[in-house]
Amino acid sequence: MAIELKDLTKRAENYSQWYNDLVVKADLAEQSAVRGCMVIKPYGYAIWEKMQHELDRMFKETGHVNAYFPLLIPKSFLSREADHVEGFAKECAVVTHYRLKNAPDGQGVVVDPEARLEEELIIRPTSETIIWNTYKNWIQSYRDLPILCNQWANVFRWEMRTRMFLRTAEFLWQEGHTAHATKEEALEEAVKMLNVYADFAEKFMAVPVIKGVKSANERFAGALETFTIEAMMQDGKALQSGTSHFLGQNFAKAFDVKFINRQNELEYVWATSWGVSTRLMGALIMTHSDDNGLVLPPRLAPIQVVIVPIFKNDEQLAIINEKVEPIVALLKERGISVKYDNADNKRPGFKFADYELKGVPVRLVLGARDIENGTIEVMRRDTLEKSVEQLEGIADRVVALLDEIQDNIFQKALRHRESKTFVANSYDEFKQLIEQGGFVLAHWDGTTETEERVKEETKATIRCIPLDGDTTPGTCIFTGRPSARRVIFARNY
Amino acid sequence: MAIELKDLTKRAENYSQWYNDLVVKADLAEQSAVRGCMVIKPYGYAIWEKMQHELDRMFKETGHVNAYFPLLIPKSFLSREADHVEGFAKECAVVTHYRLKNAPDGQGVVVDPEARLEEELIIRPTSETIIWNTYKNWIQSYRDLPILCNQWANVFRWEMRTRMFLRTAEFLWQEGHTAHATKEEALEEAVKMLNVYADFAEKFMAVPVIKGVKSANERFAGALETFTIEAMMQDGKALQSGTSHFLGQNFAKAFDVKFINRQNELEYVWATSWGVSTRLMGALIMTHSDDNGLVLPPRLAPIQVVIVPIFKNDEQLAIINEKVEPIVALLKERGISVKYDNADNKRPGFKFADYELKGVPVRLVLGARDIENGTIEVMRRDTLEKSVEQLEGIADRVVALLDEIQDNIFQKALRHRESKTFVANSYDEFKQLIEQGGFVLAHWDGTTETEERVKEETKATIRCIPLDGDTTPGTCIFTGRPSARRVIFARNY
Repeated sequence: MAIELKDLTKRAENYSQWYNDLVVKADLAEQSAVRGCMVIKPYGYAIWEKMQHELDRMFKETGHVNAYFPLLIPKSFLSREADHVEGFAKECAVVTHYRLKNAPDGQGVVVDPEARLEEELIIRPTSETIIWNTYKNWIQSYRDLPILCNQWANVFRWEMRTRMFLRTAEFLWQEGHTAHATKEEALEEAVKMLNVYADFAEKFMAVPVIKGVKSANERFAGALETFTIEAMMQDGKALQSGTSHFLGQNFAKAFDVKFINRQNELEYVWATSWGVSTRLMGALIMTHSDDNGLVLPPRLAPIQVVIVPIFKNDEQLAIINEKVEPIVALLKERGISVKYDNADNKRPGFKFADYELKGVPVRLVLGARDIENGTIEVMRRDTLEKSVEQLEGIADRVVALLDEIQDNIFQKALRHRESKTFVANSYDEFKQLIEQGGFVLAHWDGTTETEERVKEETKATIRCIPLDGDTTPGTCIFTGRPSARRVIFARNY
Repeated sequence: MAIELKDLTKRAENYSQWYNDLVVKADLAEQSAVRGCMVIKPYGYAIWEKMQHELDRMFKETGHVNAYFPLLIPKSFLSREADHVEGFAKECAVVTHYRLKNAPDGQGVVVDPEARLEEELIIRPTSETIIWNTYKNWIQSYRDLPILCNQWANVFRWEMRTRMFLRTAEFLWQEGHTAHATKEEALEEAVKMLNVYADFAEKFMAVPVIKGVKSANERFAGALETFTIEAMMQDGKALQSGTSHFLGQNFAKAFDVKFINRQNELEYVWATSWGVSTRLMGALIMTHSDDNGLVLPPRLAPIQVVIVPIFKNDEQLAIINEKVEPIVALLKERGISVKYDNADNKRPGFKFADYELKGVPVRLVLGARDIENGTIEVMRRDTLEKSVEQLEGIADRVVALLDEIQDNIFQKALRHRESKTFVANSYDEFKQLIEQGGFVLAHWDGTTETEERVKEETKATIRCIPLDGDTTPGTCIFTGRPSARRVIFARNY
């Protein structure tokens, strides 16, 4: 499969098309034969695995354990919590039969009408219901609390409009589901996990995020409070990148999960749930990448360093191989994943373009003249800058450079966000700013009605009420009514 | 939740009930609200995670990469390969609708008849069809080969009789799917992965296995050859623990996947697939555990060492804590997962029983008198032997003891298998041996008819034709016809 870089749409031409092109051309994912479902290809999955690895470590460090709950959920479970069913029933994949049989006409197989389920099962769109039905048996007393479970799983929501990684019918995610003896503890947990998500996004993905609370309208179906991390993409649109929900006692009531508290009274259990998904891949791609392809943060790059030799014959190659060997060994010793690509069936130019497309953070090039001069060419993917350096001590400098790149792309994304974050004091100003793209801090009267009117007229939604930031009261840009504080509006993915 | 060890059925009384009890009481898994689906609880999942970790490492070391393919498969895909549909259509979960709506009577939700899918989707029972439909787009030339993908996923088969871990409707597994340019290379891959499975079973699970080939009757639906590892449980029954299939060109033909070979000719691609599942948990439990609970191989135990203090008051505990701290640090330094359980709300006797039930390989007990004498009590879970040892240097001795336990339980399982492996030279002898339980090496005429007759009469199946072992010809115990070699018969899970 040849790389046709010239076919990668430029961001300035069509940002959305650039994204779709890049996902396919960088071998991250592709559409499958099933509507709205993608195939995550090995290179894309390798990035997701690195994300999983770090997140899983962070979850365990904060006291969580993994478990696994069933894929299928009895239909009736969904109805137990009124908001929850409202939020998810319309996009459920429904299993109605458990058998196929040979078609009467001998052509293929058909659903066996005799194998109809008494009660239909749905493929989990999220697992609160099946998990709380299980927790009922695990919890009798405050001594059984807290329960701090996470599950890595696939979920399914029959979305009408899908885009790879950003919104797919099936997606991979983790969902934490915790049970607590007190409201305070549950709230603390929800905020703790929001902070874990924010740390992960900023330190590993190099994606700056704003932590905040969702408006009632944007809350998870069944939550009392939804916390969110919001990132800004290069086109100024927001991407909700992770959410953590304080569920109150809603699911405990729906599934009758009570416990004896320290005061020896029966009480409903307090809950949280929190999740991030393969959507993070979308955030990663859209935050850093450029017209040459992916730009990956070194901490999540499957290949952190690639070494390409330039040689005219086997003799030259043999000499280069010998020089490269200790560099590879030193880098591996330092925990760096390095690839030495000395294949002779591809030209160096092809390799350069390929590794740029794939976002490999550092490229080292070693030719015959370098050997003579004791030098090596270093190219950093984030800035595309090349420099010729001393071969001696290169491994240590590469390790430092990887850190520098990690920091640089974070700072660049942060500067971009800051340059596109505005304050609007009138609705006219607001509309103009939203149109040009970015986050707009504006006063809002706190009503769902205003939120929906603004969305209708401008396609901007309230991304969150930031946890940090200015809390000066004011007047709503839309209605002129009192506003407790500015919130963040933006168009979003 | 109190531990009621007295309620754990004894193996001699009812081996099957003992297994079911143990899975629940050791907190490994429990039945869910969905028929045939289990909840894998945190302790059970922690063991599965360790298995995954080692297997994944072994797959990557042998050149494989992970990817992810859709959960749902168009119904028509299944019919493309004749044997495959025959094998799987009868146990498929079928998705027919993509939406629920409020029930007309206001009670809950019902399937929206207007949201019927044009073509039904099935939940993957295995992924050959969707994957080969994808590979079609990835393969044009021999240069695109081999493709060596693995996926960690959930699959669904509507089994009529289920048992936790051993046979559940939904189960977790990995499925490798590889594509090759030649028959030889594909066969080599199938055998290579069989060897990986056998190594994993023996070195990590401490479960001895016999490598062999399945008879035509027991082959995977769509395979030309199925390789298997077969383990013997304590009751003498066999458990098929992993399979690796040489699929020939069957799926390439079904999905029209051709490539240009080195001779510049169009040819169908050669395939393998291979998988192990949460069934391995069943093999692990049934091979080593005893009437006191789980016995876990140190290499897969979530907690390898537990330390329990015996104290009368806080002052004593403080002294013990101080002695334990460096032991914990030393063990962790050596990569050992250690738990110091100094909780004061449970009696030591309760803790002892609990950690025995959970199969923690080594227990260290430290009391006031030990502090005086500079000693520590060491209990090994495999033999339940206790010894008093010098406190000094205990960490190193524990590390050595863990290796010794790992080896000992493997050797014990191997001796057990050898003691229950018999040679039968007549059908009468065969029936008697099968009745008493174990593997029976007997001559077979190679026909499916004989195999099925023997199964009907004795409930014994051909587990495999061993790759190693005696290849002397003889006469079939059932028909007296010529037999190429002895095969292994056994009753099985």
